[in-house]
Amino acid sequence: MKRVLVKELAQKLGEEVLVQGWVFRWRRLSKINFILLRDRSGIIQVSVDPALVAGLHISLESVMEIEGIVQQEPRAPEGYEVVARKVELLAPASGLPFNVNAPNLKVNLEGILDHRVLSLRHEKINPVFRIQAALVQSFQRFLDQEDFLQVFTPKIVGAGTEGGTELFSLQYFEEEAFLAQSPQFYKQMLVGAGYERVYEVGQVYRAEKHATSRHLNEYVSLDLEMGFIADEHDLMDLQNRLLAFMFSRLKEDCRQELRALGVQLKPVGHIPRVPLQEAVEILDREFGKKLEGFDLDPEGERLLSGYFLQHTGSEFVYVTDYHQDHRPMYTMPKKNNLTASFDLLFKGLEITTGGQRIHDYALLKANMEKKGLDPKDFSSYLDSFKWGLPPHGGLAIGLERLTAQIVGLANVREASLFPRDRHRLTP
Amino acid sequence: MKRVLVKELAQKLGEEVLVQGWVFRWRRLSKINFILLRDRSGIIQVSVDPALVAGLHISLESVMEIEGIVQQEPRAPEGYEVVARKVELLAPASGLPFNVNAPNLKVNLEGILDHRVLSLRHEKINPVFRIQAALVQSFQRFLDQEDFLQVFTPKIVGAGTEGGTELFSLQYFEEEAFLAQSPQFYKQMLVGAGYERVYEVGQVYRAEKHATSRHLNEYVSLDLEMGFIADEHDLMDLQNRLLAFMFSRLKEDCRQELRALGVQLKPVGHIPRVPLQEAVEILDREFGKKLEGFDLDPEGERLLSGYFLQHTGSEFVYVTDYHQDHRPMYTMPKKNNLTASFDLLFKGLEITTGGQRIHDYALLKANMEKKGLDPKDFSSYLDSFKWGLPPHGGLAIGLERLTAQIVGLANVREASLFPRDRHRLTP
Repeated sequence: MKRVLVKELAQKLGEEVLVQGWVFRWRRLSKINFILLRDRSGIIQVSVDPALVAGLHISLESVMEIEGIVQQEPRAPEGYEVVARKVELLAPASGLPFNVNAPNLKVNLEGILDHRVLSLRHEKINPVFRIQAALVQSFQRFLDQEDFLQVFTPKIVGAGTEGGTELFSLQYFEEEAFLAQSPQFYKQMLVGAGYERVYEVGQVYRAEKHATSRHLNEYVSLDLEMGFIADEHDLMDLQNRLLAFMFSRLKEDCRQELRALGVQLKPVGHIPRVPLQEAVEILDREFGKKLEGFDLDPEGERLLSGYFLQHTGSEFVYVTDYHQDHRPMYTMPKKNNLTASFDLLFKGLEITTGGQRIHDYALLKANMEKKGLDPKDFSSYLDSFKWGLPPHGGLAIGLERLTAQIVGLANVREASLFPRDRHRLTP
Repeated sequence: MKRVLVKELAQKLGEEVLVQGWVFRWRRLSKINFILLRDRSGIIQVSVDPALVAGLHISLESVMEIEGIVQQEPRAPEGYEVVARKVELLAPASGLPFNVNAPNLKVNLEGILDHRVLSLRHEKINPVFRIQAALVQSFQRFLDQEDFLQVFTPKIVGAGTEGGTELFSLQYFEEEAFLAQSPQFYKQMLVGAGYERVYEVGQVYRAEKHATSRHLNEYVSLDLEMGFIADEHDLMDLQNRLLAFMFSRLKEDCRQELRALGVQLKPVGHIPRVPLQEAVEILDREFGKKLEGFDLDPEGERLLSGYFLQHTGSEFVYVTDYHQDHRPMYTMPKKNNLTASFDLLFKGLEITTGGQRIHDYALLKANMEKKGLDPKDFSSYLDSFKWGLPPHGGLAIGLERLTAQIVGLANVREASLFPRDRHRLTP
């Protein structure tokens, strides 16, 4: 008999069905037993004659296969249930470190991550990664429609994109190599290879030694790069449309998951853009916050986001025109030592960095030297700029950060299936 | 003025347009110059009054922006051309190491890979990665439709999936870590986490020391895993449908690219399945080929593929029922020391390995020990099997191999944008 999913049972009243899933609850009465069986689509009540399960070691989270008839039952949560005819134990469960079926898990984050296979079954955790997958899917579909090409670039590289800091190194046969901090150079090279518009969904690596709630040492970056732009505003225009699409698709495709997590998704309207200098003035004027240097700190990001939410209704805000000292060597300079760059804040957290890149060989080489880098270390990248590289730029979205902010998770590690952080290498 | 793509010009006869792209050819006559301009969508002839480009250093592969009028011109390749009114040089090109606009590149593979940004512009190379992207897209869409969840699992791991051989190691802060050979363990754990069906598109790593035309040290694996299967034939059924979908979408979506490369795509019908023992007998009987042990070698794969193409018309063939000694410890055993496993050959090359996995804790632990592995090294994986893991299995497709075989590339490195091999770490 072909398996029927729980969500399909409402259409099968009176029919014989085969269901498979995990034991979510399990109650023995003298004349009847009840199993709440959970599969990937939902939970169904199964009533079982005790004789059918005599000798079977059934326990919470065991995997069962049940044949039976779908019948109306007003006292069942759904108004119908499966009356079992045949019950089989597919895989037993024992020694559970915690009760994953409680409405609220009483386990700290380390315990949740240590026992990931179990904690991911929880009703408040499982939907997080369905939402994450939906975000990736809509990112890909939007860019497919916009004629971007999906690419895969190496994660083992000969040199870092931002110089030698925060790189994991490894031995690559006879040579020293590094794990890529970003697909930056490759995205740019592929614009120049004639593809013009490329995107990549892939892991990137930062060997940051300090543990915070905002950092992962391995994370998924949603990267894009685009040729023939006029300036960085073309990129913000594109990303604004992209995010509007992603949020509207998410609302449609993850209705159930958003409800389970109590998430109210606000549609993405026009995202305001504020030059950093003006942002600094707002923070001083409105909150009496003085910033050292020309960059926002986490508190500054939160305050600024709150300010723009209040004054424009937008949960997003672009901060633009960063100083050249605070941007990597490939960033396009502007007058007054500023750059054609931006960060995107979402609910108080930076989720994107982007900008126009330098496309002129001589300027790029000079900028490397200005930053104290040796152009020889970047020769295969730099050479590409001799062969006709159009004006271009791009951006990257941190997938776990975006997910965490949408869902309202306090720690970005909760938005990674198997996070890698300062002290965690397993599972 | 908004940019118009070359492929859109046929709809713009008589209109003023702005086109942007690379100089594909460049011919100066006394009274008129001709530029063939290439963008991501095609090539157009532009006629230019020499006065308009006086003083501009135009060369092959320079990036140009041209404003002009689209006019009928029977002598132009498309029957129309752009008559330039304004010409701007966006990015100059010089010092090209080879002529990328020749119909056939006279450069060896190392030269092609050394100068990837340039070689990717070639008309016989550029389409390869459009085909590759289309394959990934249709893989993702098919599995989305089949209710699979897209996931991202760590590439930095504490232990290899197949034991300690062929692993790249790295220092992860205070610990030794490895680059993942496959997402195998994580896929299985996510089936157990209640997602039941998951897929991942991501890099995997093999530190193989010998260079062949079939191996990469970093490649893209199209991985899937599926719970509640009856046996390995459920997986082959699914993959057969998946490949049929991918090929039919490719034919539709990459008409132009397939034509440019002269590829005739044969629809995927029912894929025959042959137990390894029978395959060995066929090779002996038909080709007088004796195999040592119970595995195919590259020549055996080619001969067997040829045999099945001739006798069934299928370019694909599954070889099933491998011996336990030739399969990893997580493979489900069958009678006669065989396993519920398979390889898929496509045009003579193995592109997939798959099978049912062990889902019973005790059996898995015993199998690790039988293979000489210490279960303690796999504890976070093994623990998952205590908590109710349904019968399951999965498979992986090597993206570069699939691409290479479809397109007819002699070396799998040609199907990687920036390959990593025994001696190559750049670009």
